[in-house]
Amino acid sequence: MLLDHTVKGVYPIAPTPFDGGGHIDFTSIDAMTDFYKQIGSTGMTVLGVMGEAPKLDGAEALDVAKRFIARATGMPVIVGVSAPGFAAMSSLAKASMDAGAAGVMIAPPNTLRTDDQIAGYYRQAVEAIGSDIPWVIQDYPLNFSVVMTPGVIRRIVTENPSCVMLKHEDWPGLEKISTLRTWEAEGSMRPISILCGNGGLFLDFETERGASGAMTGYAFPDMLVDVVRLSAEGQRDSAHDLFDAHLPLLRYEQQPGLGLAVRKYVMARRGIIASDAQRAPRARLTSAAKAEIDFLLARLARRDDRATTPRLVQVAVD
Amino acid sequence: MLLDHTVKGVYPIAPTPFDGGGHIDFTSIDAMTDFYKQIGSTGMTVLGVMGEAPKLDGAEALDVAKRFIARATGMPVIVGVSAPGFAAMSSLAKASMDAGAAGVMIAPPNTLRTDDQIAGYYRQAVEAIGSDIPWVIQDYPLNFSVVMTPGVIRRIVTENPSCVMLKHEDWPGLEKISTLRTWEAEGSMRPISILCGNGGLFLDFETERGASGAMTGYAFPDMLVDVVRLSAEGQRDSAHDLFDAHLPLLRYEQQPGLGLAVRKYVMARRGIIASDAQRAPRARLTSAAKAEIDFLLARLARRDDRATTPRLVQVAVD
Amino acid sequence: MLLDHTVKGVYPIAPTPFDGGGHIDFTSIDAMTDFYKQIGSTGMTVLGVMGEAPKLDGAEALDVAKRFIARATGMPVIVGVSAPGFAAMSSLAKASMDAGAAGVMIAPPNTLRTDDQIAGYYRQAVEAIGSDIPWVIQDYPLNFSVVMTPGVIRRIVTENPSCVMLKHEDWPGLEKISTLRTWEAEGSMRPISILCGNGGLFLDFETERGASGAMTGYAFPDMLVDVVRLSAEGQRDSAHDLFDAHLPLLRYEQQPGLGLAVRKYVMARRGIIASDAQRAPRARLTSAAKAEIDFLLARLARRDDRATTPRLVQVAVD
Amino acid sequence: MLLDHTVKGVYPIAPTPFDGGGHIDFTSIDAMTDFYKQIGSTGMTVLGVMGEAPKLDGAEALDVAKRFIARATGMPVIVGVSAPGFAAMSSLAKASMDAGAAGVMIAPPNTLRTDDQIAGYYRQAVEAIGSDIPWVIQDYPLNFSVVMTPGVIRRIVTENPSCVMLKHEDWPGLEKISTLRTWEAEGSMRPISILCGNGGLFLDFETERGASGAMTGYAFPDMLVDVVRLSAEGQRDSAHDLFDAHLPLLRYEQQPGLGLAVRKYVMARRGIIASDAQRAPRARLTSAAKAEIDFLLARLARRDDRATTPRLVQVAVD
Repeated sequence: MLLDHTVKGVYPIAPTPFDGGGHIDFTSIDAMTDFYKQIGSTGMTVLGVMGEAPKLDGAEALDVAKRFIARATGMPVIVGVSAPGFAAMSSLAKASMDAGAAGVMIAPPNTLRTDDQIAGYYRQAVEAIGSDIPWVIQDYPLNFSVVMTPGVIRRIVTENPSCVMLKHEDWPGLEKISTLRTWEAEGSMRPISILCGNGGLFLDFETERGASGAMTGYAFPDMLVDVVRLSAEGQRDSAHDLFDAHLPLLRYEQQPGLGLAVRKYVMARRGIIASDAQRAPRARLTSAAKAEIDFLLARLARRDDRATTPRLVQVAVD
Repeated sequence: MLLDHTVKGVYPIAPTPFDGGGHIDFTSIDAMTDFYKQIGSTGMTVLGVMGEAPKLDGAEALDVAKRFIARATGMPVIVGVSAPGFAAMSSLAKASMDAGAAGVMIAPPNTLRTDDQIAGYYRQAVEAIGSDIPWVIQDYPLNFSVVMTPGVIRRIVTENPSCVMLKHEDWPGLEKISTLRTWEAEGSMRPISILCGNGGLFLDFETERGASGAMTGYAFPDMLVDVVRLSAEGQRDSAHDLFDAHLPLLRYEQQPGLGLAVRKYVMARRGIIASDAQRAPRARLTSAAKAEIDFLLARLARRDDRATTPRLVQVAVD
Repeated sequence: MLLDHTVKGVYPIAPTPFDGGGHIDFTSIDAMTDFYKQIGSTGMTVLGVMGEAPKLDGAEALDVAKRFIARATGMPVIVGVSAPGFAAMSSLAKASMDAGAAGVMIAPPNTLRTDDQIAGYYRQAVEAIGSDIPWVIQDYPLNFSVVMTPGVIRRIVTENPSCVMLKHEDWPGLEKISTLRTWEAEGSMRPISILCGNGGLFLDFETERGASGAMTGYAFPDMLVDVVRLSAEGQRDSAHDLFDAHLPLLRYEQQPGLGLAVRKYVMARRGIIASDAQRAPRARLTSAAKAEIDFLLARLARRDDRATTPRLVQVAVD
Repeated sequence: MLLDHTVKGVYPIAPTPFDGGGHIDFTSIDAMTDFYKQIGSTGMTVLGVMGEAPKLDGAEALDVAKRFIARATGMPVIVGVSAPGFAAMSSLAKASMDAGAAGVMIAPPNTLRTDDQIAGYYRQAVEAIGSDIPWVIQDYPLNFSVVMTPGVIRRIVTENPSCVMLKHEDWPGLEKISTLRTWEAEGSMRPISILCGNGGLFLDFETERGASGAMTGYAFPDMLVDVVRLSAEGQRDSAHDLFDAHLPLLRYEQQPGLGLAVRKYVMARRGIIASDAQRAPRARLTSAAKAEIDFLLARLARRDDRATTPRLVQVAVD
């Protein structure tokens, strides 16, 4: 079950759950994995930026990946293997694939500037992990300060046959999706899957521009699943209605540095993970922030009553 | 009529209107100024980043500022005087004040890093323009890459008595507002006005945290005025309802690089300016993007029917 | 007398001299221009970064350029026209050419990242100033944070026939020179002049790699002239001996932020300008730093006794 | 034998030697360690940036550190433990100390901007590794883009009693040394050791300003040892004469990105390591670059004939 370019749907970015002492909470890994399957996720992605991957040491990272994979039983898992060097990247990539991962995701180091540097980095990464592992480009300039034009993405895809997916989180990024899909239609670029991140802030239009779905960690991934489905079914207004109902909270979660605290707080309130604990360095929610989130959840409960997202209503009104 | 720390309400960031040939459209300056007055703005800010100030040469910048000031007749005008050097900043600041400006706004150059560099820069700027001109700190790390802690803002405020306002557009920034207001309450910082920018993306909560209002350029400043008023009156849910109705479009406008094109397009559709032309370098809207904005406007018209914003409905349904 | 791609030799980067009150010292402009001619400079460049150009307002910048040009009488003058926007760039470029400049120099804004952004910026700049003005690319990543590969330089040269010169100050940059010269030899790139900056720190090898000469502001431009000449004559060891004698001081001058203070201090000691005053923001030399420079000058005087640089010895021993 | 603030002399930054296949060359680790002891180094630092630490995976890093420490037998070894997260940092720090390291070195992640962020990061790092491990601040803004004022360094030193040393490689940085030493003399800062990096480019004056010595990796660390000693003995001109003789090569080695290739090439020529191989990503020397280095070595051999550095002459003339 290897990742390929035909992937559609939603791959939630899974946070790594910790207990109050900073230890990995493996029980919550299981619960969260079950939840992702139950809501109709196509797959899941672990050890991403929002999975606090850099805060794990090498052995912990592999333990986390293995636990997610073991529990997913049939649902494909992508493992983030971004690392400061190729030796660590290669070790984690190979061990993850051995454990049953569907593919890996690679973010560029934030020191890359030119097109040649970016394309060269990915060529070297593929040399390091081997050309038989399917992998995902992570294009997230707001976080990494690395700007990839559509042209450089096409170049990476062309030079590396094992690249099958783009995690698209440029901002703004709608025209990038359109350009890539136009190139595919013209035959000047091999088709890839495009899953969108950036907290889902533009998911309503990204699907309409040709994105294959979402790969992000908003605390209501069930909404992401429904929006992608509604959009694919051509139910445009329903998709936007649902999306708009969540936008105030989604926007609140999409705060750099603070977003993961918001996400874990809501996920813990929803019962998906046991605790909202993060390892240092971390941002903490003040009581004012928690009250704002609670207020947004209460408002959300009044607007979202669809049977397809029962947990949401249940939580929001409790 | 000089700017002081008691300012409340909304100062729209005025774009600079051009015609299709790239010439300044002074007639639209008048029309836009009239519109801002009519909707209940407290004042207005011209020659900001979104006013395409860097695209004007020195003589043009002063002409634009003077035209806005002349038309505002009694409504205070803040003039952006950010410049690569103090000579140009000082020239524009003094000429603007002579023409009747209420104060000036100063953004930090994007090369500043340390607290000392930031505080030192503002000290030198005040030496250059003179200590008798009231001025505004622009704190916009996403755009300028300059990160100001609450502590460095307090230091700037304390060291420079002529600093009377913060244009707050940090992201996330809610805790910054709370911290500054706490310091004022404790007496450890002189009171200042805090007007929020960042496209208004968090205005609903910023007012609740203690912001004095908004200074941003969203294409429906009439909404900003109403949200600030409703929030001040304690009508919390009404404020959020109105804000949430606009959030899909507001979020769409808040795209780095592309935002001004969206804003001018909507303002032109609303009849506030004659053309959405920008000077180079500029991002252009594709037909797909225009269709998305039209779709958002149509959806907005269905949700916002309040008598206090007649132009919005009128435009959105045309 | 327009700039073209055949230029060789040395174009000193002229500082802008001020008096103690921050006023432009036009008398020193004349003296400095005479000095540059007398030592055998091929031309000169004014209003560069080290010319404190951003600290002048628009009218001052043009006055400075005109004074240099008027005094140069026959020696070509390049005017730096880098500006935050194209309106100001175009005004200064056209007025400078009208006053007799040989060409202009354009630095990229420090926000550019991708190859497309860089090439696009220069296309727009040429549209703004007109395609009839010969101009120089300034490639200085350490200062501007804009990284230009050889490929993007070739693209700029190819797309813009009026581009005739590269001010090369990448670091490291020797391979860049070799690559560009190889491309010219192969016929895949139109020939350009390459003058090297970066304080001259690698001038000894840059000339050997194919550079046409130097464009930098080291306080002993007479040494630069001699090194370029000796290298062109094939006197390799003599060129290196002279260069090495200056390297301790040249290295000391090549301190970011502080370098201009060192340069002006030495130039004032040599009698080339009347004062080492800078406009704010500026770094000031401590007494310890001045003592270090004096020590380096004294050591230099013991190693450089060549008749071709009499001013140097005269000053260094005083 | 724990590191403390009284350290003086030279701690060479040891490269990590590889063979042509990219495997760690443990034999060269031994040979290099012996060489460092033989030339009079006070200690050595391993797994720094120039030690290609990020290219090792966790297990390899510890193996390298242990081998250096085992061979050093009595010469103190500092281990670079910079990591993307505290878990990996803590693991390596504790294991290295268990293996006999004298202390550890911590570089700031390149995303830090404000004084509070920098000080906060180091507090958290000390919490992670434990307050009983002596450690070194690495202050290298050119490479890390993190700017530390003297004030923030004092704050870190004051807040963390286990911080005993500054690896100073700011540029320019002479005034920073003077400021810190003045504060120590005034009693407003606890004394620390200051060893200078930045390739040694300003070592001649850094020692005179109060630096305790050098911690850098120039291919002739024997020269660094002698310059520090001569300077300490008050033989100012001799120190500068020796330094100046090396400056052309030292400057050539101090090329960002390319420097390590130069260093390893010369060290291999000197017989200190078996191969100049690097792991990817790496810059390679062209034949032109190698010829330039050979030329510089030949010139150096003519100027440096002192008996205290026999290997240098032996190598340079071979």
